Amino acid sequence: MSALEQLIEALRRLPGVGQKSAQRMAYHLLQHDREGAQRLSAALAAAAQQVQHCQRCHTFSEAALCPVCLDATRDAKLLCVVETPADQAALERTGSYRGYYFVLQGRVSPLDGISTKDIGVAELLERASDGLVEEVILATSFTAEGEATAHVVGEVLRARGLRSTRLARGVPVGSELEYVDLGTIAHALVDRR
Amino acid sequence: MSALEQLIEALRRLPGVGQKSAQRMAYHLLQHDREGAQRLSAALAAAAQQVQHCQRCHTFSEAALCPVCLDATRDAKLLCVVETPADQAALERTGSYRGYYFVLQGRVSPLDGISTKDIGVAELLERASDGLVEEVILATSFTAEGEATAHVVGEVLRARGLRSTRLARGVPVGSELEYVDLGTIAHALVDRR
Ligand SMILES: [Zn+2]
Ligand SMILES: [Zn+2]
Repeated sequence: MSALEQLIEALRRLPGVGQKSAQRMAYHLLQHDREGAQRLSAALAAAAQQVQHCQRCHTFSEAALCPVCLDATRDAKLLCVVETPADQAALERTGSYRGYYFVLQGRVSPLDGISTKDIGVAELLERASDGLVEEVILATSFTAEGEATAHVVGEVLRARGLRSTRLARGVPVGSELEYVDLGTIAHALVDRR
Repeated sequence: MSALEQLIEALRRLPGVGQKSAQRMAYHLLQHDREGAQRLSAALAAAAQQVQHCQRCHTFSEAALCPVCLDATRDAKLLCVVETPADQAALERTGSYRGYYFVLQGRVSPLDGISTKDIGVAELLERASDGLVEEVILATSFTAEGEATAHVVGEVLRARGLRSTRLARGVPVGSELEYVDLGTIAHALVDRR
């Protein structure tokens, strides 16, 4: 394989990138943006080498502890459980949460043989039993697997005497009700404040 | 900026990749495919360093001359002119052309101040005047600028006594006529065989 073909192959492994997009990206970089190609190459190598997981909450971090875990001004009574570092970053970007996080390694999926053991629930239990956490907010996805994960994790926490809550289901901000799917409206009714 | 943020920035420079896609790609690579990140990093560096332009036809090549230019069995009477290495690769993939190529540096664009001088037409004239070329096939895009490029390049060639032809405009193979735009149908009528 030529260097160009190898580049197209490597770009195809990116999520959402098919053969045509990969070709377009490769030709664009080589024809118009070699500096961008060099920069992306360096950024990939640096990130793959430097970005590890926070030892406390398991989100991405370049240091042993992430900035959130190191921030002593956050509310130690709140622990928010998410499925991925991306979910943690999204919640953090809202600017509306002041507690700490715990990032699971994905979600339970009985069909794929992924149980609570595989996603780090034992570590979550240990983290939540620090004597400071009073409420564990289950912020897993509102998909079947995310709901199942929230359910089993909630049960495990309850067995240890730890209180858990779930993010509210509801109508997305900015939506016209007419265009929102019926299941969402039904949940928003149930979870009404 | 953290290594993760720098990676997201670098991914955003890819064509067709916005902030959300770049985030998704970065998190995916770090969470699920670090080997893919390393491989892409190496492929980018190798391609940016090794892929140059063929000295004869100016398409991408790792050697001084590309495989097509080195292939003595091709028809030296035919020279196909395209706008970019990607166009050359697309034509070559059709498997239906047996002549040589010449890749311009884009297309003329009066609005952007890009004239025949800027896209390598002088070099094309020299290449086409080798005494072997009998027909120059103008395979620039069927956009306003591509058509303008074909027109002026054709004029320049004619002034040198060189014959040029243009790719046929027409209905894309596999299309139902009902869904083809009217301009395309009109052109297909004019260019009917
Ligand atoms: Zn942390
Ligand atoms: Zn060549």
